[in-house]
Amino acid sequence: MGAREAGLPDVVSSGSLPSRVTIWEVGARDGLQNESTVVPVSVKLEFLSLLADAGLSVLEATSFVHPKWVPQLADAAELLSGLDARPGVSYPVLVPNERGLDRALEAGVKHIAIFASATETFASRNLNRTLDSQFEMFEPTVKRALSAGMDVRGYVSMCFGDPWEGPVARSQVVAVGERLLEMGCSQLSLGDTIGVATPGQVESLLEGFRDVTRLAVHFHDTYGQALSNTLAALRCGVTTVDSSAGGLGGCPYAESATGNLATEDLVWMLDGLGIETGVDLDKLVECSVWMAAQLGRPSPSRVVRALAK
Amino acid sequence: MGAREAGLPDVVSSGSLPSRVTIWEVGARDGLQNESTVVPVSVKLEFLSLLADAGLSVLEATSFVHPKWVPQLADAAELLSGLDARPGVSYPVLVPNERGLDRALEAGVKHIAIFASATETFASRNLNRTLDSQFEMFEPTVKRALSAGMDVRGYVSMCFGDPWEGPVARSQVVAVGERLLEMGCSQLSLGDTIGVATPGQVESLLEGFRDVTRLAVHFHDTYGQALSNTLAALRCGVTTVDSSAGGLGGCPYAESATGNLATEDLVWMLDGLGIETGVDLDKLVECSVWMAAQLGRPSPSRVVRALAK
Repeated sequence: MGAREAGLPDVVSSGSLPSRVTIWEVGARDGLQNESTVVPVSVKLEFLSLLADAGLSVLEATSFVHPKWVPQLADAAELLSGLDARPGVSYPVLVPNERGLDRALEAGVKHIAIFASATETFASRNLNRTLDSQFEMFEPTVKRALSAGMDVRGYVSMCFGDPWEGPVARSQVVAVGERLLEMGCSQLSLGDTIGVATPGQVESLLEGFRDVTRLAVHFHDTYGQALSNTLAALRCGVTTVDSSAGGLGGCPYAESATGNLATEDLVWMLDGLGIETGVDLDKLVECSVWMAAQLGRPSPSRVVRALAK
Repeated sequence: MGAREAGLPDVVSSGSLPSRVTIWEVGARDGLQNESTVVPVSVKLEFLSLLADAGLSVLEATSFVHPKWVPQLADAAELLSGLDARPGVSYPVLVPNERGLDRALEAGVKHIAIFASATETFASRNLNRTLDSQFEMFEPTVKRALSAGMDVRGYVSMCFGDPWEGPVARSQVVAVGERLLEMGCSQLSLGDTIGVATPGQVESLLEGFRDVTRLAVHFHDTYGQALSNTLAALRCGVTTVDSSAGGLGGCPYAESATGNLATEDLVWMLDGLGIETGVDLDKLVECSVWMAAQLGRPSPSRVVRALAK
């Protein structure tokens, strides 16, 4: 059954929402790096090609993190060399530090993202840095990236709750984010890495920043809140939303489903609200059904499961 | 892990939301009637008891629909005779027609719900009536119920999309609903029976009614939209929300997960927004983990899966 045959109501927009949203598709990076299955590079290339066919225009492709930490993405250079250039499609790559940047430069990458922490404990555990000293790692990376003509996105992780520290002070998140913007990041992606936020917290955090047009949101659906939080962010003026095709990164059989917001569930909402995304939902569902078969398990996306033939 | 240890951010409210929401728990009726497993009456009684222990105050207990159509609820009379009266807890029962009402009167039920369709095709398929003639069935039922001092809720199903008819005209839904209110229903529950709605459609429908205080919403999570739609309804002034503990009624292994909004996922959002419900989330999760074990499969609720020990 296609989306159009599902008994869909007419499109009805809602007051203060944007007319167009850019979906920053993170399935190939944030999704696959959190899947236990290591997917062959040929499958990743086919996946990215199908995502582009479905109309997604920003495909975060991989990460130059050390393969020791993320073996799922050890094939980053090979993947990038195999990518087809497509007009209107960009393939940003996560770059943790200068060594990663060297590899990105070698691979001819035009668009990178760096990954910062909003909390002391996660900075220590994920980056082996303090909250403050993480910037010593980012500064030369961003500076060199900008001189090379790259565009740089800044991820801020653990923006709402932190599994070790609990509630995260809004001022701390804003301070980290604004520092990344001042450093030259063109956009921030504010991440609810453990999926605990609710809409009031989202609104409050977004209001803390000076320029909402430079903000994107990145929600995980651990507690089922990702789409509601996205709706809250859209009402605040955010127009870039991170999501993962098929909800990659979360396993429907696991006790804890910690995956990203599923792109299909997001597109369903945006389609119903008349918000343009350029995405063909039926093609995207087909892609995610195919990818789920590669991973040997059903997709955690509700839309994919409802529309899968 | 309890909800309080999950790295929860501080409570942050949001402008136009109510301070208190009544959760109309439908797990024992709408949930169990859509589960393939037939649950013994002793398990249902324990389930209802645990739900009340968790602080839920409106527990739709069962249905007096003909056992031929819903064998899962064939034990309605036995269930009701086994229920413990608890101060502050009501146990509404679905009553399709006068024969069902007779059984409800016999069982000493104080609060019933009738189940209407907003579309011609669903009225025909579910009630064997036309859109208009369904009222001939409801009128004597409601009249007799009111004379017996009962409180009557009116469900309106297929309020947004219909699998046979597609988009449902708002005017048609409002006409059905207002007619039920005029007949004496104290409250309407507007149902997105196939889970296709998005927030703009919800707002538009709610605005069509004269008195939002008499409206409740009933969302299914087939396309992952249930919680976002609930948020939209709360912003419109709705203060009663239907949901199903553990997302009962939808199977996480099935291709199509058509269950109700999970009560836990709802409570997580309301807790984060500082909206009172009276529900103890940890106790509720414990109840749903227990119920999932009775059904022999994990809960489709994200919160239950994340917090399950």
